[in-house]
Amino acid sequence: MSKQTKFLLPESELPTHWYNLNADVGPLGVELPPVLNPQTKEPVTPDDLAPIFPMALIEQEMGAERHVEIPEAVRDVYRLWRPTPLYRAHRWEEALDTPAKIFYKYEGVSPTGSHKPNTSVPQAYYNAEEGVQRLTTETGAGQWGSALSFACQMLDLECLVYMVKISYEQKPYRRVLMETWDATVTPSPSDTTEAGRRILEQDPDSSGSLGIAISEAVEVAVQDEHAKYALGSVLNHVLLHQTVIGQEVIKQLERAGADWPDVIIAPTGGGSNFAGLVYPFLAAHVDGRPKPRILAVEPDAAPSLTKGQYTYDFGDTAQMTPLVKMRTLGHDFVPAPIHSGGLRYHGMSPQVSALYEAGHIEAVSTPQLPMFDACQSFVRAEGILPAPEAGHGVWGAMQEALACKESGASKTILFNLCGHGHFDLSAYEAYRAGELVDLEYSQDEIDKSLAAVPQID
Amino acid sequence: MSKQTKFLLPESELPTHWYNLNADVGPLGVELPPVLNPQTKEPVTPDDLAPIFPMALIEQEMGAERHVEIPEAVRDVYRLWRPTPLYRAHRWEEALDTPAKIFYKYEGVSPTGSHKPNTSVPQAYYNAEEGVQRLTTETGAGQWGSALSFACQMLDLECLVYMVKISYEQKPYRRVLMETWDATVTPSPSDTTEAGRRILEQDPDSSGSLGIAISEAVEVAVQDEHAKYALGSVLNHVLLHQTVIGQEVIKQLERAGADWPDVIIAPTGGGSNFAGLVYPFLAAHVDGRPKPRILAVEPDAAPSLTKGQYTYDFGDTAQMTPLVKMRTLGHDFVPAPIHSGGLRYHGMSPQVSALYEAGHIEAVSTPQLPMFDACQSFVRAEGILPAPEAGHGVWGAMQEALACKESGASKTILFNLCGHGHFDLSAYEAYRAGELVDLEYSQDEIDKSLAAVPQID
Repeated sequence: MSKQTKFLLPESELPTHWYNLNADVGPLGVELPPVLNPQTKEPVTPDDLAPIFPMALIEQEMGAERHVEIPEAVRDVYRLWRPTPLYRAHRWEEALDTPAKIFYKYEGVSPTGSHKPNTSVPQAYYNAEEGVQRLTTETGAGQWGSALSFACQMLDLECLVYMVKISYEQKPYRRVLMETWDATVTPSPSDTTEAGRRILEQDPDSSGSLGIAISEAVEVAVQDEHAKYALGSVLNHVLLHQTVIGQEVIKQLERAGADWPDVIIAPTGGGSNFAGLVYPFLAAHVDGRPKPRILAVEPDAAPSLTKGQYTYDFGDTAQMTPLVKMRTLGHDFVPAPIHSGGLRYHGMSPQVSALYEAGHIEAVSTPQLPMFDACQSFVRAEGILPAPEAGHGVWGAMQEALACKESGASKTILFNLCGHGHFDLSAYEAYRAGELVDLEYSQDEIDKSLAAVPQID
Repeated sequence: MSKQTKFLLPESELPTHWYNLNADVGPLGVELPPVLNPQTKEPVTPDDLAPIFPMALIEQEMGAERHVEIPEAVRDVYRLWRPTPLYRAHRWEEALDTPAKIFYKYEGVSPTGSHKPNTSVPQAYYNAEEGVQRLTTETGAGQWGSALSFACQMLDLECLVYMVKISYEQKPYRRVLMETWDATVTPSPSDTTEAGRRILEQDPDSSGSLGIAISEAVEVAVQDEHAKYALGSVLNHVLLHQTVIGQEVIKQLERAGADWPDVIIAPTGGGSNFAGLVYPFLAAHVDGRPKPRILAVEPDAAPSLTKGQYTYDFGDTAQMTPLVKMRTLGHDFVPAPIHSGGLRYHGMSPQVSALYEAGHIEAVSTPQLPMFDACQSFVRAEGILPAPEAGHGVWGAMQEALACKESGASKTILFNLCGHGHFDLSAYEAYRAGELVDLEYSQDEIDKSLAAVPQID
């Protein structure tokens, strides 16, 4: 008998609005402490943020409108790859010999191969609407940089990407991809900014860091009246844009005749793909549907939810951003160089952190070796190669499916496969060659880094 | 006003049958000369082919059943990525300022990023059905090798890939991809076969060639009673399997309310993605629909249609295959090392060659520099990065669209975007760095190579 594997939605079912979690903090019993100006320690005002973000995004960041309309021009670009498919993992279920029903949403069909363009496109749109001519950003391995390059190309903006120098030199392909979308990619630290020159004076051979690259990108945005800055995760407006993912999933599960999921799983770095899948289910819960178990999977190398502290901290290493209350390992914390570059963040989205504090979500962490084992199991059955970041969702789903095998429970498991691994074959090569190293952090080491966090209550 | 960009089909619209051109050679006035045994020069029999192919594929190769049912198990695997999207290139039309309407079928959403799994999956299926335990093949850059590895993984077969040694050493990522699907990848020439050992004795440092790799793969298939060989293009049964592409397109054009295409364009190497898009339109023509102009685009480096000769020749450099009548540059012809590795073939599918001889299709060729220029224009507008092979279709469509701009004609143009370029960023890097070299062949050089072709009338 034929089994349906893939649940597509027609373009007419593309969501018309994003879902704003800020609207439901009351019903969910979640407290979202204000973001603070690092100088005054007072709540930031829109004017504080205006030098780096356009007003429309600042309003989304702070606003509490429950449904935010997606501009038609943004939907036009989304249509290049959205709606994305939802899969039922029949083959993997069989391989795992589990009674569980496993569904996964696949965001790897976007032009950049991940979920990131869901937010880079509206960010570019609102900037263009307000007359901004160029966007600046930082990138490590290049996922976010390529998503913003793509979006700027689609919306006729210039894009300046500060790419951590060691990645610029070691990973030329992502740079080429960004340049193909006409972005200007500069190895960071560079002599194009004060921040970069200061670093180079001290250390002409600096291989750079995300913190330095952020400083350079923000400096350019502040000093150039025609430029603004764009961030790829963590902030409320970024998570808002990702909610197209979960909204599509809910429609697709209905088409699949599936049960409401028992457990929803997604990787967490800054929190954006996680929020994108999960928030629409929280909205449905506020509207009366049962709340699934919600599971965040983070790498052992950056365990902000499982081992961090809920406190005010800087979003960046260089202490330039506002202070946000979040689960953090301390802004000085440097995650080990695992292959899931997109998850190597010391903090966590303030919204996701607050949901964790309120008990709405659970979190687990994994070293990268078992995560790659799970990916290998998945690719053997489903044929799709996960990006290592996405692999954390795969690993989480596998644990749940194996628990169902143990217990005999026929649960419905849903996870987010947020990107393909076609750019990550060097990681798979290291995995297959037995060259993966896992560093786990002791609570002592994390406490040391947390000691540098500013004390604000 | 909202413009629909992408035309999806539900899984229920996945084609149930492949279309067999052999059935329509009469109505199309096409003659398909027999394939000859290279020893006897007599037409080959199924028994001649049985050592390397399973009987079901031999029957498809020689059969004339018009509609060949697609086994449910094959459709089950197809559903992992099929139906694939058809796009209307609104943004590119605007960028080119053309009155033409441009549609493209996108095969890059498959797990291996190209159209190749459309045939690797059924090939693996029929072999498994007949008790074959392992498939052997050769690969250059790795597109076909990864498609067969994926298919063997899905159908529980072992896969042995002989990879040209220079690619094995210079392009480790494709090898890793194949290994992730559990294929055994051996650099060729190797000491695992008589053919390989013979080469290594003469030249221990040989960097290999496709011809040598074919010899090794076929030798293993012939000597191991549990193994058969699989080929990724050229043969009738391979082209048959690709016809899911064009069948889906016809349904999607109807959904788009589009006019019947005025011109259909696809790249040609061995002919398989071309046939996949084009054949269903020829079938529709036999059934009474108008025949679009049909345009094959080949690289200047392997101009078998535009500069070759229609004659009996070997399919491989090593003169091991049967003799087929085709457009050929001579089996000794070595195409320049362009980045479109998948198009570097001295010959052309016998079916496509016969269609060309009968005047059903036109052909043009292009150097790679203008082809990459066209890709750059396309990616700026549409955001999707074409594989260089696929770029030949992009280039062809662009010429047609610009001709429409000139003439003011609002033609409907359809082309096959047969793969994404996420594995080809080194090619784009060379392009952007101005390092692309184009070698054009003079008719004299081609004639020299053609002189080595066996004389059979």
